[in-house]
Amino acid sequence: MQLAIVGDKLIEANKLDSAYLDYGTFFGDGVYEVLRSYDGKLFALEEHLARFKRSLAEIEIDGVDIDDIRDKVISTWQKSGIANAKIYFHITRGAGIRDHTAEGLTPRFFLMVTEIEDASRQKQNGITAMTVPDTRWKRCDIKSLNLLPNVLAKRLAHKRGCDEAIFVDDKGGITEGSSSAFFAIFGNKLQTSPLAANILPSITRQFVLKIYKNVGLELLEKQTRAEDATKADELFIAVSSKDVVPVVKFNEIQIADGKPGKYTKLLINEFAKLVKEK
Amino acid sequence: MQLAIVGDKLIEANKLDSAYLDYGTFFGDGVYEVLRSYDGKLFALEEHLARFKRSLAEIEIDGVDIDDIRDKVISTWQKSGIANAKIYFHITRGAGIRDHTAEGLTPRFFLMVTEIEDASRQKQNGITAMTVPDTRWKRCDIKSLNLLPNVLAKRLAHKRGCDEAIFVDDKGGITEGSSSAFFAIFGNKLQTSPLAANILPSITRQFVLKIYKNVGLELLEKQTRAEDATKADELFIAVSSKDVVPVVKFNEIQIADGKPGKYTKLLINEFAKLVKEK
Repeated sequence: MQLAIVGDKLIEANKLDSAYLDYGTFFGDGVYEVLRSYDGKLFALEEHLARFKRSLAEIEIDGVDIDDIRDKVISTWQKSGIANAKIYFHITRGAGIRDHTAEGLTPRFFLMVTEIEDASRQKQNGITAMTVPDTRWKRCDIKSLNLLPNVLAKRLAHKRGCDEAIFVDDKGGITEGSSSAFFAIFGNKLQTSPLAANILPSITRQFVLKIYKNVGLELLEKQTRAEDATKADELFIAVSSKDVVPVVKFNEIQIADGKPGKYTKLLINEFAKLVKEK
Repeated sequence: MQLAIVGDKLIEANKLDSAYLDYGTFFGDGVYEVLRSYDGKLFALEEHLARFKRSLAEIEIDGVDIDDIRDKVISTWQKSGIANAKIYFHITRGAGIRDHTAEGLTPRFFLMVTEIEDASRQKQNGITAMTVPDTRWKRCDIKSLNLLPNVLAKRLAHKRGCDEAIFVDDKGGITEGSSSAFFAIFGNKLQTSPLAANILPSITRQFVLKIYKNVGLELLEKQTRAEDATKADELFIAVSSKDVVPVVKFNEIQIADGKPGKYTKLLINEFAKLVKEK
């Protein structure tokens, strides 16, 4: 008789809740999105859905109805009544007996709406960051559930008293943060890694690249070397849940005067405008 | 109000079954083992427990009682009454609101005992394999739940009519299979990748390295280059569920006479002896 244990409880395998047989758990075989609302307004839903659709296609999870997901995001968020909400959702390949190459599974959808953590103090005072080796897989352009290296990096950063871990590749170039995009400003040059297989196409990055000109910056899509980051005039990260957040200390070294830089502050304001207009 | 959707069902977030908030699903933040029994005898339980303990330590999941897991493996397998069983178990960091750096979670244990698939035909006739780029993360020595690249590789192999996908690194060297260790035999030299951060310390490999001398082989712990594999006299994979399985076709090219080689057959017999003695 096929048997299972969940925690301490013995169960006949055929009576297991399918949640315990989710390929998301067995393999991280799924993709996800996180978006937010600002003061009762959803931000960048279409951009997140487009990226989600691409992620699904890249790992060949077929038959997902994006319109249905859009409806679920909107209606669940509306029912929640949360003005500043974080909306997380994922789809996994399905559930069943563990098998790398199972066919014909039904994709499984999960969504959760929670209050977003207030980031106003982080945006006002800035955060600290440290570098860690980029040990992730080679397809970080897919927003997949394989996030153990991100978890380990961020846990290490927290242990060392830092807010974010910044990944550095074998050649010493910064790729991105453990849950954010990374930007450096030298003079009036805004520098960030070009999109590639080792970079998530960040939605917030996409919007920063729409507004940087408004504040007088010029763009340089180029990796920042880890040792150069500490010499930048300004550093910031971009993440859907908080948009633009200044980094004021990097690998224990204070950036410029240790306060959020002028361009970063202007970008935060521009982003706030964009959020209201969009 | 915090809300969730599971499939099509709207649920208050605080009424969600914790299985839906498992960090195994959100991040692949967990480690696992697969072992088997042969004809009513568990094989290599202590070796699997030792590797599991190491994996837990590497990702800093603390407070797991390995003795308790041993008891659960043995008692559940015995209750199942399955003579040739596959025993899968994992531990994840815990469950809760999704947070990369959550502290104080209770690790979650899952185990499942199923009938093992009969591999006698594969062992007799051999299997086919093809190479795929090794896109995995850089800590494949940890047996973690981040297995999406393995799934994608094996799905691709199956689509192309192959049984196993063999990972090849940036420099053209074979690391291992998507769910197996890889061995080549040139003359009487048994060649396999040395253990490193990009190789899982396979338990079956460990036992192959105990018996190769018995069949007159010499060991060379060295990566096989993908283009050299087709020129080998014999190829095989090693995997806990099937032990030694000959590979008779590699990247569409027949290996030697296209039948399982003499040393491989001797190793299969030696392994069968070991299983009875141990």
